[in-house]
Amino acid sequence: MSNKKPLSIIKIGGNIIDNPNELSQFLVDFSNIEGNKILVHGGGKSATKMAQSIGLTPQMIDGRRITDKPMLDVVVMIYAGEINKNIVAQLQANETNAMGFSGADGNLIQSTKRNHPTIDYGFVGDVQKVNTTLLEVLISNGIVPVFCAITHDKKGQLLNTNADTIASELAIALSDFFEVTLNYCFEKAGVLKNVEDENSVIQQINSDLYSKLKDEGAIHSGMIPKLDNCFNSLSKGVQKIKIGHHSMLQNKQALHTTITL
Amino acid sequence: MSNKKPLSIIKIGGNIIDNPNELSQFLVDFSNIEGNKILVHGGGKSATKMAQSIGLTPQMIDGRRITDKPMLDVVVMIYAGEINKNIVAQLQANETNAMGFSGADGNLIQSTKRNHPTIDYGFVGDVQKVNTTLLEVLISNGIVPVFCAITHDKKGQLLNTNADTIASELAIALSDFFEVTLNYCFEKAGVLKNVEDENSVIQQINSDLYSKLKDEGAIHSGMIPKLDNCFNSLSKGVQKIKIGHHSMLQNKQALHTTITL
Repeated sequence: MSNKKPLSIIKIGGNIIDNPNELSQFLVDFSNIEGNKILVHGGGKSATKMAQSIGLTPQMIDGRRITDKPMLDVVVMIYAGEINKNIVAQLQANETNAMGFSGADGNLIQSTKRNHPTIDYGFVGDVQKVNTTLLEVLISNGIVPVFCAITHDKKGQLLNTNADTIASELAIALSDFFEVTLNYCFEKAGVLKNVEDENSVIQQINSDLYSKLKDEGAIHSGMIPKLDNCFNSLSKGVQKIKIGHHSMLQNKQALHTTITL
Repeated sequence: MSNKKPLSIIKIGGNIIDNPNELSQFLVDFSNIEGNKILVHGGGKSATKMAQSIGLTPQMIDGRRITDKPMLDVVVMIYAGEINKNIVAQLQANETNAMGFSGADGNLIQSTKRNHPTIDYGFVGDVQKVNTTLLEVLISNGIVPVFCAITHDKKGQLLNTNADTIASELAIALSDFFEVTLNYCFEKAGVLKNVEDENSVIQQINSDLYSKLKDEGAIHSGMIPKLDNCFNSLSKGVQKIKIGHHSMLQNKQALHTTITL
């Protein structure tokens, strides 16, 4: 039996961010989660909209945004500014003592600019280290950290960083100090056996079943990096990972997928 | 002799923010200041530029921006996002453990929406209280807070807030715990007797001299609310206030104005 205190890390994506009513409801549910917790949020459509309205053309390769300097400015504004601060203000109204962070703040998440052999992703960061000492101080003072998907290289450069990866790297780093449950909330009820059927949620996945489902083609495209991240996190000490609709946070009976090694 | 530790609060304005080279130099100088410190930054021209590029027309009354909802979104993006996070990343590169905040973060600065009898300022906040307990925890853990000019009402609403006022309210609240020196950095070498002559810096101003200079018309327009703020802060416990070009932070010989009661 571990003496570590529990910590819930919850990652939400664009489907929640883009819907103000759903976001408000989620933030009430998040505020009701007991104990230590961290929120990680992605960006949603507003960065793309803003980029278009100032005349930029967003570029994607393999589902990842290519972040040139003007696009970096936009994602920093939208993710660290508009989205992060509005979430923090709403959580404060819910009596949750939220504090919003990029990885640059307190050097909480340091990255290196991605150096890919064939694709120039631009100002995209791969997480290098998490400042667990400072995060522990904040959490033990009742702070609920809210991370946006922006990090830095400790040399003055901000970097756009995948929010799923931020959530898993925080979970791994903090599993030395806490018993971490990592929750990925998205638009579906969980990992589906049949993407057309919301009731086909696979309730438990382990690494053997994952290999089998990939071979069968039942799990493909965007779900593969998400699940690869999960198994990597579990192998590095994260206790439990749940994937599903955010209603799983309040309703223990709600269908969702639990991932184990 | 006070047992309080010294704390320097430095406010910078648009003239520094709008010039990347000057900002970088300032941030090096700021990093070299010894002991506890806080940075408060204004917005500069980029919020106005962004507003124009997405088709908004900024409105001003008496030198204050009227902040309707679309303009609030812009200032939150630019102040709390782009400017704040780029400053934090640069300070981190200078080995200063900066952490960027709006007033919503950790409920550090709570405001009320301005209720003016004749002018609707929109989403503008007047500072109500500062969370000194949490600020002390952060500062005692080596954190250098960097505040943008955004606060919140603790009911979920972000509010645009004058950066000079944020600096003075922080100085007043923290003077219970620290011996606070408040530094206002702007484009001039100090308060000038003759606005055309950079060498006419008034090196010391007390409240009697201030009344006299106002009566003579030597101090007018934008300088009046700045100095009113100063005398208010001094009467509420702030130790010392300096006004001048940011070079005064490194060069003790540089001309500047010191304000005392």
